[in-house]
Amino acid sequence: MAEKSLLVGVIGAAGYTGLELLRIIHGHPYVKLHVATSRSHAGQPIADIFPSLRGFVQSHFEPAESPRLRQCDVLFMATESGVAMDMAPELLASGCRIVDLSADFRLREARIWEKWYGKPHGAADLLAEAVYGLAEWARGPLVKARLVANPGCYPTSVLLAMAPLARDGLLQDGLVINSLSGTSGGGRTPRTDMMFSENAGSARAYGTSGHRHLPEIEQGVRFFGASPAISFLPHLIPASRGIFSTIHLGRGDAALVHESLMGVYHNEPFIDVMPMGSQPATNMVLGSNMCRIAVHATPGGAVIVLSVIDNLLKGAAGQAVQNMNIMFGLQETSGLEAVALMP
Amino acid sequence: MAEKSLLVGVIGAAGYTGLELLRIIHGHPYVKLHVATSRSHAGQPIADIFPSLRGFVQSHFEPAESPRLRQCDVLFMATESGVAMDMAPELLASGCRIVDLSADFRLREARIWEKWYGKPHGAADLLAEAVYGLAEWARGPLVKARLVANPGCYPTSVLLAMAPLARDGLLQDGLVINSLSGTSGGGRTPRTDMMFSENAGSARAYGTSGHRHLPEIEQGVRFFGASPAISFLPHLIPASRGIFSTIHLGRGDAALVHESLMGVYHNEPFIDVMPMGSQPATNMVLGSNMCRIAVHATPGGAVIVLSVIDNLLKGAAGQAVQNMNIMFGLQETSGLEAVALMP
Amino acid sequence: MAEKSLLVGVIGAAGYTGLELLRIIHGHPYVKLHVATSRSHAGQPIADIFPSLRGFVQSHFEPAESPRLRQCDVLFMATESGVAMDMAPELLASGCRIVDLSADFRLREARIWEKWYGKPHGAADLLAEAVYGLAEWARGPLVKARLVANPGCYPTSVLLAMAPLARDGLLQDGLVINSLSGTSGGGRTPRTDMMFSENAGSARAYGTSGHRHLPEIEQGVRFFGASPAISFLPHLIPASRGIFSTIHLGRGDAALVHESLMGVYHNEPFIDVMPMGSQPATNMVLGSNMCRIAVHATPGGAVIVLSVIDNLLKGAAGQAVQNMNIMFGLQETSGLEAVALMP
Amino acid sequence: MAEKSLLVGVIGAAGYTGLELLRIIHGHPYVKLHVATSRSHAGQPIADIFPSLRGFVQSHFEPAESPRLRQCDVLFMATESGVAMDMAPELLASGCRIVDLSADFRLREARIWEKWYGKPHGAADLLAEAVYGLAEWARGPLVKARLVANPGCYPTSVLLAMAPLARDGLLQDGLVINSLSGTSGGGRTPRTDMMFSENAGSARAYGTSGHRHLPEIEQGVRFFGASPAISFLPHLIPASRGIFSTIHLGRGDAALVHESLMGVYHNEPFIDVMPMGSQPATNMVLGSNMCRIAVHATPGGAVIVLSVIDNLLKGAAGQAVQNMNIMFGLQETSGLEAVALMP
Repeated sequence: MAEKSLLVGVIGAAGYTGLELLRIIHGHPYVKLHVATSRSHAGQPIADIFPSLRGFVQSHFEPAESPRLRQCDVLFMATESGVAMDMAPELLASGCRIVDLSADFRLREARIWEKWYGKPHGAADLLAEAVYGLAEWARGPLVKARLVANPGCYPTSVLLAMAPLARDGLLQDGLVINSLSGTSGGGRTPRTDMMFSENAGSARAYGTSGHRHLPEIEQGVRFFGASPAISFLPHLIPASRGIFSTIHLGRGDAALVHESLMGVYHNEPFIDVMPMGSQPATNMVLGSNMCRIAVHATPGGAVIVLSVIDNLLKGAAGQAVQNMNIMFGLQETSGLEAVALMP
Repeated sequence: MAEKSLLVGVIGAAGYTGLELLRIIHGHPYVKLHVATSRSHAGQPIADIFPSLRGFVQSHFEPAESPRLRQCDVLFMATESGVAMDMAPELLASGCRIVDLSADFRLREARIWEKWYGKPHGAADLLAEAVYGLAEWARGPLVKARLVANPGCYPTSVLLAMAPLARDGLLQDGLVINSLSGTSGGGRTPRTDMMFSENAGSARAYGTSGHRHLPEIEQGVRFFGASPAISFLPHLIPASRGIFSTIHLGRGDAALVHESLMGVYHNEPFIDVMPMGSQPATNMVLGSNMCRIAVHATPGGAVIVLSVIDNLLKGAAGQAVQNMNIMFGLQETSGLEAVALMP
Repeated sequence: MAEKSLLVGVIGAAGYTGLELLRIIHGHPYVKLHVATSRSHAGQPIADIFPSLRGFVQSHFEPAESPRLRQCDVLFMATESGVAMDMAPELLASGCRIVDLSADFRLREARIWEKWYGKPHGAADLLAEAVYGLAEWARGPLVKARLVANPGCYPTSVLLAMAPLARDGLLQDGLVINSLSGTSGGGRTPRTDMMFSENAGSARAYGTSGHRHLPEIEQGVRFFGASPAISFLPHLIPASRGIFSTIHLGRGDAALVHESLMGVYHNEPFIDVMPMGSQPATNMVLGSNMCRIAVHATPGGAVIVLSVIDNLLKGAAGQAVQNMNIMFGLQETSGLEAVALMP
Repeated sequence: MAEKSLLVGVIGAAGYTGLELLRIIHGHPYVKLHVATSRSHAGQPIADIFPSLRGFVQSHFEPAESPRLRQCDVLFMATESGVAMDMAPELLASGCRIVDLSADFRLREARIWEKWYGKPHGAADLLAEAVYGLAEWARGPLVKARLVANPGCYPTSVLLAMAPLARDGLLQDGLVINSLSGTSGGGRTPRTDMMFSENAGSARAYGTSGHRHLPEIEQGVRFFGASPAISFLPHLIPASRGIFSTIHLGRGDAALVHESLMGVYHNEPFIDVMPMGSQPATNMVLGSNMCRIAVHATPGGAVIVLSVIDNLLKGAAGQAVQNMNIMFGLQETSGLEAVALMP
């Protein structure tokens, strides 16, 4: 146990990402929940909204403007896009460090952000400072970061698999990425198309006119030195959690691809490059902060890379806590040791 | 009502495709179940194995060698690969017409069949005669066909969407097809990896080393005049039924693609080319013989075609009955009028 | 085919019961959809809201006040409680016959209705006239009925099993009824607690402080001559459709119970009294208008009766159409011949 | 960290309970996996069979006769009924302490065991010594226990709720217990009726002719001083995990029942007596060792108690580890701190 626990705040804590942050923070040996805010549930016991936390979390949701936020060492922002950019400047000025789980600081260029999110960026001057927190690739910058842009769920599953390949020149033009996601990525706000009766036993694509995670993936791949044209399509499947990304690399040498991944990741606690030809499934990672990656050679000579994560953990709250651990010099796996819950 | 009902036999009727055939035949106005065979359940009441048929189907499963088979006008073979090729010659000689739902007669070249199925083809001389029953594209040959090779589930979902495009020169090289399937395609034989506990809430790819439906798709596309390299990967999702195929065409003109599909299919009872940009879901076709197809233009200028079917209906038993209807000059939609069951 | 189709209207057609009515009416040989109303979707193509109907239903939702309603021979009301009681008097005066799928006319005593529904009953004078449409038990009255109260989903599953036993004096005091339901019974209006992420893989009870179907069950049992104290608890399970009712009768003679059921129902097209000791499952009835009932003797000498239906069919739209068929002298099974869709 | 970790063995580790034990042991601070045996998978890497353990568990399954078993401080037996009774005497003689998760030592009378399990009991002399490990009620005896009979999943969910009531004289005759279970309780051995396609979207009862957990529940209730006639029926729902037990107590005073439960359990780390009228759901406990219990008064004056657990944790492996913690004087919650994974 650390001498003194870090004080943690969660802003927008009444969604699924918020719930997951509260769950991880509860089990984290070196941090302490100081405040959790919610516009819609301020004043209510957290465990009334999230009964899975009964017996573990005793406090109440506080209003969005709670003064306790400024007393925190680190703030997680699990808010809708547009909120973090408004709140971040003042909170940073108070000395808090921020891990923003929304999309506000993920894209480095305000112009691109504004095109995809359809509104002006309210804190464009912070974009250059924000560290894109793809944890395994950002350890250096994270140590001193005041503001971390936590990657999106699809980009995390895709970029962890593609970063080594981009760096090693193994990506060609015309990449096709086909991703499947559970419904929890769609949030907790009620919508007809997210109801049980609408999704049980059914699959569909969405974001066909352009999903906001595409520019994030493109930016990430470019950062690692490649700039292939990418066709990305997300799908919704009848599962609560999990992302399964199928990355069609086109013709190539699967062994080289596997080596490239192994070379980078063989010692990573949260990345499992499986033996050539393995078949990952999302239930091999659900409830854990793991990303499992497999490489396949097709009979036609193409290479396919498969990547699975839990969208709420490695794809959101888990990676956010991993980033916090790195920022504050804690053991990187603290609070994130859980093995996947299977079946 | 026809003067006299056709006599129908179902060989290998104790699997999911068999069950679906029995269900459709029961509701078909012009045909009558004469015999249903099952090696493992011979002698047992059909409704004991399939209680959903209680009150509708009174007969028993008969042995594989039942003499009643030869009395049938038409036989559906819902057997594992290798069985139909052994039985077909004699049954055809008895005057029965056959719709084979297995893969035995789908590939025109014995050499390719043998490569993918790993054994010698026992009736290679019938391959040239067999009609590939992609119903909407085979009406002429079907009328006189003695032996119909009913297409696979994935190929049906893919080829219905790609046939017009192949014919109209709209396919370029490097196609990527990503398909999702419910578990019923995996059959009724117990296997650990098909158990509820293993699949609930989880997704995975399979057939990564080459799925047998790939050569069938390649042959089909070639038949319509194109020969692009194709990367095809099937996935299993936690649903019982349904196939969702996402076909990434690469850069192209989505409007042309949509026109090509509309031009061919606008009057088809079982094919619905949805308005540009529509979002099909498998629960829009489950329980029906419909194939719904949508076309999308991505922000990067690529074209994506989405195709959904019920794997047990349009992808198996439904198309088989549609083929029978055409073979015998019946109303093509007879027995297949069911609207999708949603939710 | 009838000389002239009945004209049918569906009021409140944009919910799941409405969808199911539209689907059945489309396939019904003797009726024709004349109008379907929806407050929220008036003016929109029906198939835009329910894409499973694309290609089958071409018309638009009309406003709640559509004058076409009065032109109908029969109106199905799939509205929330309180609507039918307001609209019924005028529509009946126009000569329409009504099958009300809401709860407005199910309870014969306004006092009890008002206690359970928490508001005054606006058409109490119609309660005596309304026929409680438990189809197999109401054929006589249905023939002349102007106003039919279509039973609730739980009461249907329970009363079909209990009616013969009540009549034959086989019910003792202290009945316990434990029912499981799929989520579609909860409707299509978005609610957090009905979202996919909240229900996937989870079960819960509800209505513990008293479910409105209890007085309906009590009234029904009383009608058949018994008045046991009943403890009824509904549960929600991760399925879209289906009701599984487990009726614990206490100590008794299972053979007598089975005989009582067989005696009444052995020739019913929609009720299947399974052999003693059978194990019904909801997927043996989903998509069909069947009710399957099984009787069990426990090792302790108690009798348990199990009853399964599809809540949207025999528990709502299916029974409503069955009632209409009886009211108008049509073949009782018309439009309802579908065999359960399994798997 | 303890000076020296306990050495742990898991016998029959290739089932779901075995997997869950391996997962918990991996995260337990005071114990170390010394050997895991499997008849069918001896020699194979554990993580090949259970890929969710990749990166966490490096060892191989060993044969059932592994000499390493005798070196263990404690052995968990996750075997089919009949195995533990054969192996226990010799292993106890070697000085190992045993927590048997099978049913072999749960019933105190060999006669009753033999009646329900249909074979002679091979170690009847150990029955008197075996401690029935309903953890919260067996702490004293557990400290010195050599052999612990870990309770069944249904009995755990039921007895935790009923023990205080039995003791306080709040149980009357004619109890009805209706339980719902996820499929993982059915094990990992492939069976047609446990396949995904057979269970998705469907519910059914089973064990109607008498479930083996009934005598265990009866014995437990008797132990706490009551002997009501009990009707118990388990059901299978389309979920992987979780048990939801609905206990119908008949007429009574709900407040007294709630008080009785609160009085005993208000300080228990793994038992949550929720406020009167709460609605527990299985997803409030999945992945945790919690049992949540709620009390309801029905409008008819009856009392219903609801109890939810994760069948693989509090209902099997979790309670087994809790028992081990008590046996060896470890912190009772060690290794079991996980909060439920929701959604």
